[in-house]
Amino acid sequence: MIIDRLIEAIGALGNPTVAGLDTRIEHLPESFQKRWDIGTAAGAAQAISAFNRSLIDALIDIVPCIKIQAACYELYAEAGLSALRDTAGYARSRGMLVIADVKRGDIGSTSAAYSAAWIGRCGGQPVFDADFVTVNPYLGADGIAPFLEDCRRYDKGIFILVKTSNPSSSELQDLRLADGRAVYEAVADRVAVWGEGLTGSHGYSAAGAVVGATHPEQGAALRRRMPGIFFLLPGYGAQGATGADIVRMFDRERGGAIVNASRSLLTAWRKRGTDDFASAARDEAISMREDIMGALGRVRYH
Amino acid sequence: MIIDRLIEAIGALGNPTVAGLDTRIEHLPESFQKRWDIGTAAGAAQAISAFNRSLIDALIDIVPCIKIQAACYELYAEAGLSALRDTAGYARSRGMLVIADVKRGDIGSTSAAYSAAWIGRCGGQPVFDADFVTVNPYLGADGIAPFLEDCRRYDKGIFILVKTSNPSSSELQDLRLADGRAVYEAVADRVAVWGEGLTGSHGYSAAGAVVGATHPEQGAALRRRMPGIFFLLPGYGAQGATGADIVRMFDRERGGAIVNASRSLLTAWRKRGTDDFASAARDEAISMREDIMGALGRVRYH
Repeated sequence: MIIDRLIEAIGALGNPTVAGLDTRIEHLPESFQKRWDIGTAAGAAQAISAFNRSLIDALIDIVPCIKIQAACYELYAEAGLSALRDTAGYARSRGMLVIADVKRGDIGSTSAAYSAAWIGRCGGQPVFDADFVTVNPYLGADGIAPFLEDCRRYDKGIFILVKTSNPSSSELQDLRLADGRAVYEAVADRVAVWGEGLTGSHGYSAAGAVVGATHPEQGAALRRRMPGIFFLLPGYGAQGATGADIVRMFDRERGGAIVNASRSLLTAWRKRGTDDFASAARDEAISMREDIMGALGRVRYH
Repeated sequence: MIIDRLIEAIGALGNPTVAGLDTRIEHLPESFQKRWDIGTAAGAAQAISAFNRSLIDALIDIVPCIKIQAACYELYAEAGLSALRDTAGYARSRGMLVIADVKRGDIGSTSAAYSAAWIGRCGGQPVFDADFVTVNPYLGADGIAPFLEDCRRYDKGIFILVKTSNPSSSELQDLRLADGRAVYEAVADRVAVWGEGLTGSHGYSAAGAVVGATHPEQGAALRRRMPGIFFLLPGYGAQGATGADIVRMFDRERGGAIVNASRSLLTAWRKRGTDDFASAARDEAISMREDIMGALGRVRYH
């Protein structure tokens, strides 16, 4: 199962991190931008695609997985989706796993179309063919069910938003219910149910949860609350979370989480004062691995 | 302001309905499908695009607005987005308003990219250039703010999901909070705040709400709860809501809502036993107008 492949890839590289390719044109060094006509959507998308390929090459033996932020590609319409598909295909051809961060969610029939596009098939053919996709839970079970069905059918996975990393996540997600739970805890309890029946050989479901690394206390409580659910942890780096913040969102025996970093990797060249963005991202990814593994200590990956 | 233009367009045609172009290849009569190589993404997308243009032509003097469901186009990747842009551009060139039903929502920096793509600009140029876009509130204010900013900057509008039309909307949205409100009511209260400062000359904000026509009681209560918020009401027709169900989601003096119908218009040709889908949709749209206006009685549109 795909969740087992993810866990094993993390174990093989000893690195529970995912490189977030939320790539914007301003993340590219000017010297690199200049090679394309970035004034056009096609040129900008091609530049981003080439940048992503170089990053993937630089991270291939450090990071097991990439996460592609769809918004950054939608911005360039058709050319952007072409860059997204190129990036996803290239990463998969090099053996990396691919999370499409699309946060889709709709009524059942529409969710079925989103699921087909991102992890399923259309006319028998894969479309974007990600390994995992992120999903918004606001519409409830019938917006999630088509994704779960495609997880079963095509051996794919999803990560459902539970507690997001952004400052105003508290506004709706932390509201207190009459039964004492917070809204995000109620969502967590639904995710645990939705994930049943998709559990792989390492004890985690192919239906995982997005939990912001920026909320260490809530993340630790969620780790205890949903032991069979794998976590995608955004918010490390530019959003402020450190290795120490995320340690309790991991299971000491079984891992159970993967940490995303986007801007800190994409713009590492700026911090390190070089235009060699690929080497800078590689160095930053190694630092990140050391920070996280240092904090985690003896967490075991199978 | 765009919300005034929508209200005036509704008034001019005497019809508070929006045609939902959730177009799938199976919505096209076989005789029409045959003109394209629908086995390919490009062929299928072109067929859908041509179908949409014919529907727009048939509905031009009946329906003031179309709603494009992004999932149906994402399914065909680049070719699908090209069809989406063609449909949106064609509708606007004919004077119809365009709602992009994308239900996007993310952390602030990512929502800014989604907003730029759908109602804003990229490199100074519009991308999909919809008049309105639908937005998911699960991430709170910082996921909404970039859309509100583009509403101001480019005279656009949004509809924020409050209470969706699908059966399992109750699962999360109807949970009871400690303060007595349901989750969707708390969202409604936030939407009313977010919509402040965007109010047009007819008393409605450019930040509206999605309220499922399938929940007549809850919809009526929401109408009273947020008097300055314009409603987009999905769920009429194929999802089961009737003209009588939605009457209390309107304001008797000021209108304040628009009803979406998708499948009932797209597949009217099937019900009416003809391949002339355009005429069938037109007839169905006229029936729908009569059903809704009959139920509404003396609602006034300025």
